[in-house]
Amino acid sequence: KDEIEPKGGVKSFYTVQEERMEQAERSVLISCPSKTNEKKFMKYLSRHGDINKCFFYESYGTYAVVEFAHKESLTSLHQGTAIPSVNHEAAVPFKSRLLSLKNTGSLDQSSGQSAPLCQPQTTVPMNDLILRLSNESSIDQQISSLTEMHQLTEENVCLRYLVCSLLKDIAAAYFPECKVRPFGSSVNGFGKLGCDLDMFLDLDGISGRSLKKLKAGFSLEYQTKRSASERAVTQSILSVIGECVDQFGPGCVGVQKILQARCPLVRFAHQPSGFQCDLTANNRVAMKSTELLYLCGGLDWRVRCLVFGVRCWARSHSITSSIPGAWITNFSLTVMVLFFLQRRTIPILPTLDYLKELAGPLDKCVIDGNDCTFVSDVSKIRLQDNTETLEQLLQEFFEFYGSFAFNRMSINIRKGREQNKSDVSPLHIQNPFDASLNVSKNVNATQLERFVGLCRESAWMLQQREFNAPPANGAAGGTKAPWGLAALLSPSVSQAAGVKS
Amino acid sequence: KDEIEPKGGVKSFYTVQEERMEQAERSVLISCPSKTNEKKFMKYLSRHGDINKCFFYESYGTYAVVEFAHKESLTSLHQGTAIPSVNHEAAVPFKSRLLSLKNTGSLDQSSGQSAPLCQPQTTVPMNDLILRLSNESSIDQQISSLTEMHQLTEENVCLRYLVCSLLKDIAAAYFPECKVRPFGSSVNGFGKLGCDLDMFLDLDGISGRSLKKLKAGFSLEYQTKRSASERAVTQSILSVIGECVDQFGPGCVGVQKILQARCPLVRFAHQPSGFQCDLTANNRVAMKSTELLYLCGGLDWRVRCLVFGVRCWARSHSITSSIPGAWITNFSLTVMVLFFLQRRTIPILPTLDYLKELAGPLDKCVIDGNDCTFVSDVSKIRLQDNTETLEQLLQEFFEFYGSFAFNRMSINIRKGREQNKSDVSPLHIQNPFDASLNVSKNVNATQLERFVGLCRESAWMLQQREFNAPPANGAAGGTKAPWGLAALLSPSVSQAAGVKS
Ligand SMILES: Nc1nc2c(ncn2[C@@H]2O[C@H](COP(=O)(O)OP(=O)(O)OP(=O)(O)O)[C@@H](O)[C@H]2O)c(=O)[nH]1
Ligand SMILES: Nc1nc2c(ncn2[C@@H]2O[C@H](COP(=O)(O)OP(=O)(O)OP(=O)(O)O)[C@@H](O)[C@H]2O)c(=O)[nH]1
Ligand SMILES: [Mg+2]
Ligand SMILES: [Mg+2]
Repeated sequence: KDEIEPKGGVKSFYTVQEERMEQAERSVLISCPSKTNEKKFMKYLSRHGDINKCFFYESYGTYAVVEFAHKESLTSLHQGTAIPSVNHEAAVPFKSRLLSLKNTGSLDQSSGQSAPLCQPQTTVPMNDLILRLSNESSIDQQISSLTEMHQLTEENVCLRYLVCSLLKDIAAAYFPECKVRPFGSSVNGFGKLGCDLDMFLDLDGISGRSLKKLKAGFSLEYQTKRSASERAVTQSILSVIGECVDQFGPGCVGVQKILQARCPLVRFAHQPSGFQCDLTANNRVAMKSTELLYLCGGLDWRVRCLVFGVRCWARSHSITSSIPGAWITNFSLTVMVLFFLQRRTIPILPTLDYLKELAGPLDKCVIDGNDCTFVSDVSKIRLQDNTETLEQLLQEFFEFYGSFAFNRMSINIRKGREQNKSDVSPLHIQNPFDASLNVSKNVNATQLERFVGLCRESAWMLQQREFNAPPANGAAGGTKAPWGLAALLSPSVSQAAGVKS
Repeated sequence: KDEIEPKGGVKSFYTVQEERMEQAERSVLISCPSKTNEKKFMKYLSRHGDINKCFFYESYGTYAVVEFAHKESLTSLHQGTAIPSVNHEAAVPFKSRLLSLKNTGSLDQSSGQSAPLCQPQTTVPMNDLILRLSNESSIDQQISSLTEMHQLTEENVCLRYLVCSLLKDIAAAYFPECKVRPFGSSVNGFGKLGCDLDMFLDLDGISGRSLKKLKAGFSLEYQTKRSASERAVTQSILSVIGECVDQFGPGCVGVQKILQARCPLVRFAHQPSGFQCDLTANNRVAMKSTELLYLCGGLDWRVRCLVFGVRCWARSHSITSSIPGAWITNFSLTVMVLFFLQRRTIPILPTLDYLKELAGPLDKCVIDGNDCTFVSDVSKIRLQDNTETLEQLLQEFFEFYGSFAFNRMSINIRKGREQNKSDVSPLHIQNPFDASLNVSKNVNATQLERFVGLCRESAWMLQQREFNAPPANGAAGGTKAPWGLAALLSPSVSQAAGVKS
């Protein structure tokens, strides 16, 4: 179970985030020829200082992430780096920490170089996954195995922080004190390899600043552009950063400025990492809900496993989708799992109100008039002794939502119990930090019905002997018919439930 | 005559420019309450270090330019400067060297403060000018006096370099080695107070860089965005800088990105200085022609005087205009004056070919295949002993162009003599650095005819006794009727010439 334990231990979310951001500041991303001798590469780079970490991966070519022990090494590295001189082409001479390694001289090609070991950055295809899960010996093991295969690797998390740090450099050109923080599934503990990278431009280091006013006499202020609203300022800033990313950002393609959205953002694909990126600003509540999910995922190892199991099941039947629409989002689905775990006879997760009660003075947090306070010190939280297995929990999850009174009741993780619905949306999941909002307002009746139908069908399947244990008579060494979680991921489930995907 | 002597003495154009750019880097621009006590202000600022220079001026409020002796003073100043906290408004927290002085406490208002002495940044209106010139005692003095009144002041030149420096900060956010150089009339010696500020983004410090290639082994390059052409790169860079100026630049209004022009540019008004600004990149030839004009203006004091006289005369009759069109530009008109001065029986100015012969090895300069070489060391230039007065020169100028064979001949300052025209444009002035181009291609036949007609009429007037000397019977202490240059600037000339303006 060691690999599924939350990485951060008892460290708070912000502590982990600050540490990783600092590591990313000392890192560079280097595109390498496919056959690069790792040892020589490390030797070449170590002339700039000690290297803490280095790994390779594939994404439109071979790349290496190199983390130096000291920030000064980057200064040395930059001094030894040239602007490329290209024939028949012109280059924007913007210097970033995205570099290319050139190997001149034929010396290395002759000596039969091998490619460096590359860390996988994507998940296995669904068919392979089903085969692999079928070879496990229990449903509990299937769910654990799925989690291990899907969860973000240490290297992938490093790469996500590095991409944030590269983007921070672009923003810091104008706002030196800014930070770019990852949020959402990249850091909440529920991210799957390949998930998008949500970033938050944090300008609080600047704007919060005000000097002690002297009683009388002169003082100096920066002359600044004024706007009618914070929103307009956010739009201005994202507009410029979007333009910079588009025109200067190496490997940044398909840049879209979506400035009129409720939460204005810049969207682009970062080819060197393979990440689809969303940059927002002024989005503190999302940071806070990321922290809440991170905390919940760290309280009991079964939380993350069940979320990974349910998310994968939902994705395989197109209950969720990578494009926006009237379907349930991963975020809503995660909140539904958390709620289910609060509703166990012996609860596995505490209520948000309980987490708020435990909060210390430093945890106090009010955003736009909404109280978002909850405890950050996990050691204060007392949990009850629930011993249910993952198999039981998965079964119960399907039964719980297969018979939930969606028509009347709202899902509320703050209270940890259902409440009478306040609006007419088919699915109502109260926003944990703003009681007036419904996280799943986008979901229509058809999509909710599909979800409920699939829950019922899946609950039924897990009760059938042919599905809830490995087939005894599987051909020795051959492929077993899908069973357990593997069967739940197979198309037959939605067919049996009579649900069109 | 001292004030009309070129400021730089024998220093080369680039030496002067680098010195002034360095001074601007140590300067700040501060918006002040209209009644600011100068002494207290200086005392308040000098806590950050010694101040080399400080002056006040008016432009949408009172401003001060403060030049510190050492760059470190700016760091200290920035530490003591706050982002404003504004009610009912939001501010883009971009920190520049454009600051606002706040005066808290009622202490100063009670003690009957007076406003600081403000340096004028504009010229007197035409009517006042005519009155003032009429009070001079000779045409020579009129022309000198006009030059003194119209030429850029020391303070105005400082302010121009400072605005370039502020813009450099915006560009340097992404291209730390870049420079922003003023060119055109702001620095060529022929600028009139209120003229536009032409700026050139110089990226040569970056892109020219390439490291010695090792024989074999690894090397590192920055990964950069590629474009099909240098032009496309220039457009990208100006697009981003234009966006930044628009969204972040305090006091920058009316920003237009004119990226499809032959020479892409960003145009905006800089309210704190009152300058209309044009930022171009990749525009080295314009830099070179600025240097040539600067050099010519410095060779003989009469050059600048005659140019100021002719430019003012042309502007007063709408021969030139502040908006682009089919009329003669100030640049063309200046080249025409230079040509005229080369064509004197004893030439006042040498030919460009002669200046090229004198060039040393360091003066060598080829831009886009055009040889732009000419001497930078003024002391090498030998001039002939022409003693004509300004009055004579002005008279001869009008006669020269009143009877020039524009239909057949082209104006060529490289050779210093007219040549057969190579195209059908009414007015042909060969581009000194590209023989295939006509600097005045835009001028149509009507505009040329107006110019010629006015030259003839003006030449005639200067020969009439009632115009070429002060009226003897002017009412004592009263206003004299316009005479000499003053008469030439009056509307009656164009009426007499039968020319509609
Ligand atoms: N309050 C609230 N927060 C949301 C909502 N949608 C997204 N968020 C927040 O924004 C984060 C990023 O959104 P997404 O990228 O859509 O979701 P994600 O959790 O990252 O999951 P995937 O990207 O699908 O892996 C989430 O983790 C939430 O913290 C919503 O409807 N309400
Ligand atoms: N070769 C060439 N250079 C030009 C031309 N027009 C302008 N320039 C250059 O660009 C500089 C700036 O142009 P302008 O702003 O139009 O002219 P200016 O000399 O600054 O004069 P004013 O702005 O009218 O005071 C000029 O000084 C020239 O060096 C042209 O048609 N041909
Ligand atoms: Mg996401
Ligand atoms: Mg100009």
